[in-house]
Amino acid sequence: MIRNLRSTIVETVCTVTLIGSSCAFGQLYTFSKQELIDYTAKSPFDRLPDGRPKVPDSMIERARDLSSEEVWAGLHEDSFRNQYADGFQVLHPGKTMVGRAFTVQFMPLRGDVDEISKNKAKENGLSGLTNQTAIDMLQPGDVLVVDLFGKKVDGTIVGDNLFYYVMKATRGGGLVVDGSIRDLDGISRIDMPAYFRTVDPTPIGNVMLTGINIPIRIGGVTVMPGDLVVGDREGVYFIPPQFVREILDRADEIHIHDEWTKMKFDEGRYKSSDIYSSPKDPKLQKEYQEYLKRRLDEIHQQQTSK
Amino acid sequence: MIRNLRSTIVETVCTVTLIGSSCAFGQLYTFSKQELIDYTAKSPFDRLPDGRPKVPDSMIERARDLSSEEVWAGLHEDSFRNQYADGFQVLHPGKTMVGRAFTVQFMPLRGDVDEISKNKAKENGLSGLTNQTAIDMLQPGDVLVVDLFGKKVDGTIVGDNLFYYVMKATRGGGLVVDGSIRDLDGISRIDMPAYFRTVDPTPIGNVMLTGINIPIRIGGVTVMPGDLVVGDREGVYFIPPQFVREILDRADEIHIHDEWTKMKFDEGRYKSSDIYSSPKDPKLQKEYQEYLKRRLDEIHQQQTSK
Amino acid sequence: MIRNLRSTIVETVCTVTLIGSSCAFGQLYTFSKQELIDYTAKSPFDRLPDGRPKVPDSMIERARDLSSEEVWAGLHEDSFRNQYADGFQVLHPGKTMVGRAFTVQFMPLRGDVDEISKNKAKENGLSGLTNQTAIDMLQPGDVLVVDLFGKKVDGTIVGDNLFYYVMKATRGGGLVVDGSIRDLDGISRIDMPAYFRTVDPTPIGNVMLTGINIPIRIGGVTVMPGDLVVGDREGVYFIPPQFVREILDRADEIHIHDEWTKMKFDEGRYKSSDIYSSPKDPKLQKEYQEYLKRRLDEIHQQQTSK
Amino acid sequence: MIRNLRSTIVETVCTVTLIGSSCAFGQLYTFSKQELIDYTAKSPFDRLPDGRPKVPDSMIERARDLSSEEVWAGLHEDSFRNQYADGFQVLHPGKTMVGRAFTVQFMPLRGDVDEISKNKAKENGLSGLTNQTAIDMLQPGDVLVVDLFGKKVDGTIVGDNLFYYVMKATRGGGLVVDGSIRDLDGISRIDMPAYFRTVDPTPIGNVMLTGINIPIRIGGVTVMPGDLVVGDREGVYFIPPQFVREILDRADEIHIHDEWTKMKFDEGRYKSSDIYSSPKDPKLQKEYQEYLKRRLDEIHQQQTSK
Amino acid sequence: MIRNLRSTIVETVCTVTLIGSSCAFGQLYTFSKQELIDYTAKSPFDRLPDGRPKVPDSMIERARDLSSEEVWAGLHEDSFRNQYADGFQVLHPGKTMVGRAFTVQFMPLRGDVDEISKNKAKENGLSGLTNQTAIDMLQPGDVLVVDLFGKKVDGTIVGDNLFYYVMKATRGGGLVVDGSIRDLDGISRIDMPAYFRTVDPTPIGNVMLTGINIPIRIGGVTVMPGDLVVGDREGVYFIPPQFVREILDRADEIHIHDEWTKMKFDEGRYKSSDIYSSPKDPKLQKEYQEYLKRRLDEIHQQQTSK
Amino acid sequence: MIRNLRSTIVETVCTVTLIGSSCAFGQLYTFSKQELIDYTAKSPFDRLPDGRPKVPDSMIERARDLSSEEVWAGLHEDSFRNQYADGFQVLHPGKTMVGRAFTVQFMPLRGDVDEISKNKAKENGLSGLTNQTAIDMLQPGDVLVVDLFGKKVDGTIVGDNLFYYVMKATRGGGLVVDGSIRDLDGISRIDMPAYFRTVDPTPIGNVMLTGINIPIRIGGVTVMPGDLVVGDREGVYFIPPQFVREILDRADEIHIHDEWTKMKFDEGRYKSSDIYSSPKDPKLQKEYQEYLKRRLDEIHQQQTSK
Repeated sequence: MIRNLRSTIVETVCTVTLIGSSCAFGQLYTFSKQELIDYTAKSPFDRLPDGRPKVPDSMIERARDLSSEEVWAGLHEDSFRNQYADGFQVLHPGKTMVGRAFTVQFMPLRGDVDEISKNKAKENGLSGLTNQTAIDMLQPGDVLVVDLFGKKVDGTIVGDNLFYYVMKATRGGGLVVDGSIRDLDGISRIDMPAYFRTVDPTPIGNVMLTGINIPIRIGGVTVMPGDLVVGDREGVYFIPPQFVREILDRADEIHIHDEWTKMKFDEGRYKSSDIYSSPKDPKLQKEYQEYLKRRLDEIHQQQTSK
Repeated sequence: MIRNLRSTIVETVCTVTLIGSSCAFGQLYTFSKQELIDYTAKSPFDRLPDGRPKVPDSMIERARDLSSEEVWAGLHEDSFRNQYADGFQVLHPGKTMVGRAFTVQFMPLRGDVDEISKNKAKENGLSGLTNQTAIDMLQPGDVLVVDLFGKKVDGTIVGDNLFYYVMKATRGGGLVVDGSIRDLDGISRIDMPAYFRTVDPTPIGNVMLTGINIPIRIGGVTVMPGDLVVGDREGVYFIPPQFVREILDRADEIHIHDEWTKMKFDEGRYKSSDIYSSPKDPKLQKEYQEYLKRRLDEIHQQQTSK
Repeated sequence: MIRNLRSTIVETVCTVTLIGSSCAFGQLYTFSKQELIDYTAKSPFDRLPDGRPKVPDSMIERARDLSSEEVWAGLHEDSFRNQYADGFQVLHPGKTMVGRAFTVQFMPLRGDVDEISKNKAKENGLSGLTNQTAIDMLQPGDVLVVDLFGKKVDGTIVGDNLFYYVMKATRGGGLVVDGSIRDLDGISRIDMPAYFRTVDPTPIGNVMLTGINIPIRIGGVTVMPGDLVVGDREGVYFIPPQFVREILDRADEIHIHDEWTKMKFDEGRYKSSDIYSSPKDPKLQKEYQEYLKRRLDEIHQQQTSK
Repeated sequence: MIRNLRSTIVETVCTVTLIGSSCAFGQLYTFSKQELIDYTAKSPFDRLPDGRPKVPDSMIERARDLSSEEVWAGLHEDSFRNQYADGFQVLHPGKTMVGRAFTVQFMPLRGDVDEISKNKAKENGLSGLTNQTAIDMLQPGDVLVVDLFGKKVDGTIVGDNLFYYVMKATRGGGLVVDGSIRDLDGISRIDMPAYFRTVDPTPIGNVMLTGINIPIRIGGVTVMPGDLVVGDREGVYFIPPQFVREILDRADEIHIHDEWTKMKFDEGRYKSSDIYSSPKDPKLQKEYQEYLKRRLDEIHQQQTSK
Repeated sequence: MIRNLRSTIVETVCTVTLIGSSCAFGQLYTFSKQELIDYTAKSPFDRLPDGRPKVPDSMIERARDLSSEEVWAGLHEDSFRNQYADGFQVLHPGKTMVGRAFTVQFMPLRGDVDEISKNKAKENGLSGLTNQTAIDMLQPGDVLVVDLFGKKVDGTIVGDNLFYYVMKATRGGGLVVDGSIRDLDGISRIDMPAYFRTVDPTPIGNVMLTGINIPIRIGGVTVMPGDLVVGDREGVYFIPPQFVREILDRADEIHIHDEWTKMKFDEGRYKSSDIYSSPKDPKLQKEYQEYLKRRLDEIHQQQTSK
Repeated sequence: MIRNLRSTIVETVCTVTLIGSSCAFGQLYTFSKQELIDYTAKSPFDRLPDGRPKVPDSMIERARDLSSEEVWAGLHEDSFRNQYADGFQVLHPGKTMVGRAFTVQFMPLRGDVDEISKNKAKENGLSGLTNQTAIDMLQPGDVLVVDLFGKKVDGTIVGDNLFYYVMKATRGGGLVVDGSIRDLDGISRIDMPAYFRTVDPTPIGNVMLTGINIPIRIGGVTVMPGDLVVGDREGVYFIPPQFVREILDRADEIHIHDEWTKMKFDEGRYKSSDIYSSPKDPKLQKEYQEYLKRRLDEIHQQQTSK
């Protein structure tokens, strides 16, 4: 029930402001629903009420088995080689993070800009412009992705209370912050993946919220709202929606390939180059192809039967 | 003449796009002339055709004597303590940089966004969206301020040819780039101040232009188009226009204060704390006040007579 | 029994040297028992035989539930905002460290000073001046806090033998060293919290012991002997004794606040800002106040009954 | 069986090339079997078919209990103080790594050299010169030690498939790479020790294989093929074979010493300096000597009975 | 005269050792004259007596005007994109360095290997194996390129005495060291370009000389003996000889292009994109082509007449 | 005259406080005149009124020609190998710094300690405890050496006014600060050597003065008041007074040695190892010894005649 409530609120604000031309909450950067739709036009999927592409829940489930290497294999076009970020502390290293990017941007506080932003927010019926303004808009399946420009002191997007709330609101989606968190002891007891640069005891401050669901930069990546976020022990991939299906299908093959490769290594009769990355002997090659086909069929049946 | 030419072009593009609601060149982030005026409403000065506040040329001249400490003294309100950036390589350490911020933002290349941006640029009559798109809009008195997110390889905003052009177009204004430059040997022979993170032989690449004269972040500073940029050996201050006059006046007093202080130290009769930061002895205090008044009068006469 | 033995020794040395004016062991910096008492005069508690404030054992027990954020909340006066240090490797991340600071300082070896220090130590009846000189003075409830100026090679305050001894002598108090340890494999099997910069196989060397229970600097913190040391996954707080009671009481409220907040989030009917950081709706506000009062009463009864 | 197969191959290649004067596979640096034997002449042990000293399996077993400190104690001659490397990420912190160094070196790709190397490799009957060329030569008991000059992107020596193969071929020996690995999620499920600088999703590339079983540099260490590699939570020691027996014997004594020291600390009757590093009281000294002798006898009986 | 003397010595040593199969001085890595010739077979130039390609003196002279960007432009094939190193301190920033790479490699000292190396050196008639062993072989036009693996303390390849000698022997060629130098005050008074990581007062030590004129790694570059080394304010390029002529010719065009571009910018009638990187207007295009041709002719006449 | 004035004040304060037992100004660490004399007892020289060893002015003059290497050569005993610090920005790289260490220590502000310190200062007749308290005590020939624990923001020991005062009071002695300075533009116009970690526009703050002329740590060096400070382009040496004469004498020989070595290199007839570090040929050896004797005589005559 809460989810509907939140959706209603978001849409209301947008409806009001769309009389102008954007879904503006008073933040410095506006990126209207239409602009969001334009810039993510390649997504083959439905959209969330806020305009973000909606990678289907079923694909989010399948993506839980993805590794960074499998995403890399499916995303290695020259103009998409900047979709990976690392250098984070990983809260629960064994737990893959998957979800739709909900982006938030902060910039260093500057009194004149902040005053005007907050006045605009009030005109739009918001009582303030804080991390909670954004957090209150989260949807199930979202990963909260925040640009806090690597800030440590005063750069803590959440403590354990709001982290708990994010977990509830996103149904365990996750958090990526180019900045810090506070209350690590408390947060480490909550079962949601999180990637952060560092930890500090101070609350967030000396910054201003400048964008919600706008394009943001995390490390060397341009993240678009609605990207499929996949995090493992190594780092985080931000996958444009149009690549998701292909990556998942290819990953199925890679899983089978690795399964078979290790099986052959277990036999102890081959050098690594006899088998990997592909078998040299035509007979082995054929054996592999048959194995691949059989296992793919099994997987497809499983997926269909779900 | 060239300047008029360029202004015309800029206005033309804006006129066209203002039929919509912003001065958009196709870049990802738009920040309309009206938004720019709204967010810099506190500026007491005229505006440039592109909407930026125009700190007067006479104040730019006076600002050439400012040091970072004098700006600090005039800008130390709690909500404006983030206006200073350092950690740059300084091209000509003895040469103060002063001018109006012309801001440019790049983000990591991402094929889908880039394609749509460039299509939008074409619809707006631009042949491309590159560093030169922005550089061609520079005005005399500008300092080119560029967010290239600290990028070294492929993050070189200019080589010596374009640096030479920027020098010509801004009349020696200057360059600040959170990124790199190339052709340092050539650039070091050109007489314009520049602040950059590092140097690389590669040309700019693997990025997309995402904003011209939008708010940007340089290190820990939110820079607004039209800020007065002041750079010395230590680093760079970005001064909101509404503070400029007060800082300049206060700096005159600081100059006189330092002049007098050093004169007294030269006499060799006082401990530092007798004189600095203010004289303890009432007689010295009076002497200083008279000196201050006399010198201020002289300075004001000079300024008036110019 | 060992404890009494050790106390006797310490007092003896002090008695002798107090004929002079300080409890000097020959180290370079002396800080007499009287100086220690003077500089920690705000402590409301009893003192240990060596002059350090003695935060009561019962408060040490209560402090085991403190998080860095709770200390931060109680210690955020302007002149006490430097009491937190981080950047350590944490030996047992899930285990809070609490105890009274026993401080030790080393400086880089310098033959002439070292020779004189050691001669003075001999005159005071000590056979040498080493890490063990200090370690032999530890009391139950102490945390050993050591300034080894970040030294890695030759900067290892203990290996597993002495770490084991520190654990026994402090009854599991803990160790903070701005320096390194050796024999991490062995140490990681011992159940005492420890915070260290790094690890090295070399033993301690090329340094001289310059102070025991003197004021020292750990990162950006001035640590006084007898400070309450609280370490969690994030870092270490050094709490002046006069703040301890207030912080503990406030932490009780914060615990209840977080308990209630999460309970409300679990209901799924509220946005985060409806509840956090304080409930907006007067009815909720009242509900919270009643909950707070009831839970505080319960806690106080528990504390009394102990 | 696979092992014999592999040995045969190695010897064949060597036999052929030894007609010249080295066991060259086409790589840039050649280090003939004779040179290897010359430069490791101090080893008292047998040799592997490729010329490396063969520290006996029984000593490898005993070395599993070694800590970095025990190696340090046995290897602290002035001209051997550079045998320790750290700063690695450790895959399985609780699991000691022990084995014989199998060294591999890569250098940055350079088209002209690479072309000639590969031509020479072909003349020697190899189909290429890649990480797998080296990996296919691994023997049981080996630790794969790789100089990839700290490279992250494109510097991944193995992903989970080849890591699995290395585990099978070396019988769980281990991996040290001054470079990166990929597919950390997969690798962390495989039970073999590994030390690496960092992790990246890219496969290895933009490098050329320049040496197999040649002297290489890992951090500040010159590693020779056949060195005994010992890794714990702190870092990795590369022990020249001639020191192995002495270090193992000395470590037995250190184990007993630590055992006894902790036992005495447990009694709670002594200051640390009464006992550590050696007991002061002649009676205790005697007690220790008797304990040492008894325990050493027990250990030797155990070792003999194995 | 000294040069002949030195050449004789080198050849003598080589003659002796060539009875074996390499020009070995006892160092750990040998790289015979024949191997050197094989691996640099693409060089179109004569060779020095030690086998290195000899880029002609006339080309070395022309290369003094090269900038890093011009080398970049001529060396941007995929398999040669690793030929640039930076991150050095530059001794004389305004002075271009040009010369033939004379390579030297050191590795961390290890007593057993060092002993054998030195014995082999003695058998070859050398009294030792030190930095001076290599320095004594330098030829006019050489740049001394040294891998000291970034070592600071004990990693100083020269002080001012040997730096002076290198200057004399190479006729001012230059020095690149991935390591340090000592006596910077003295060295800064000597007129030869130098690139080094850092400075330290210690002399070289705790290392062993492992190769002279072998392939070495400097940062991310594989350097071959005889490469043309070009250093400017930005960093150092190592150019394989086969690319030298083309780069020089192309640089002539780039010089003319920049000359013309700046001339046109001086006219003040064009936007940067009208002119740069190539003129858009066909008339301007033609003007440029004629200018280019005329200036190229002038340059060629100059070069011929020299 | 000012100097006498200052001395008087210092002595007065000391006289008063010596009734207690130390020359205390209220700072946290006290180090009495007697302690200072005890710990520097090896100095063969007179003392300044504050108890510091007074390296004679004539030796300070001779020391202006010292390089770091010459100090290194005279100070390389095992227990004095920690007397060198580097990693500073050097204000005037060509200008050697020489003088007697006047040490000052700051620690992070902590309200309770600061309050007590200031109260004690007041009881001792001082109006406060700030950087100027220390600066007002400087004597001609001093180098101000300050531990500000590397602090950048709020860690600026002086701006241009106080730097000017330090220059006047020390007669151009110099400044070493493990912290920052402000107003670099102004300071760079003042002719006194300075070594600092970094620069910031903020004034000093958030610290407390904890010691004047006490032992302090600068990087890896224990600095004693009265040490001879020698700074060149590389870094700073802190020389215990007892070593000064020997180092100066040895440096004279090194100067002559280098003079002769370069002269021989200029002849072009020798390899570097024929001459350096000492000539091999007995005839050359004799030539050098005669040259050395003659030049030493000349130097001694010069020194005597001064």
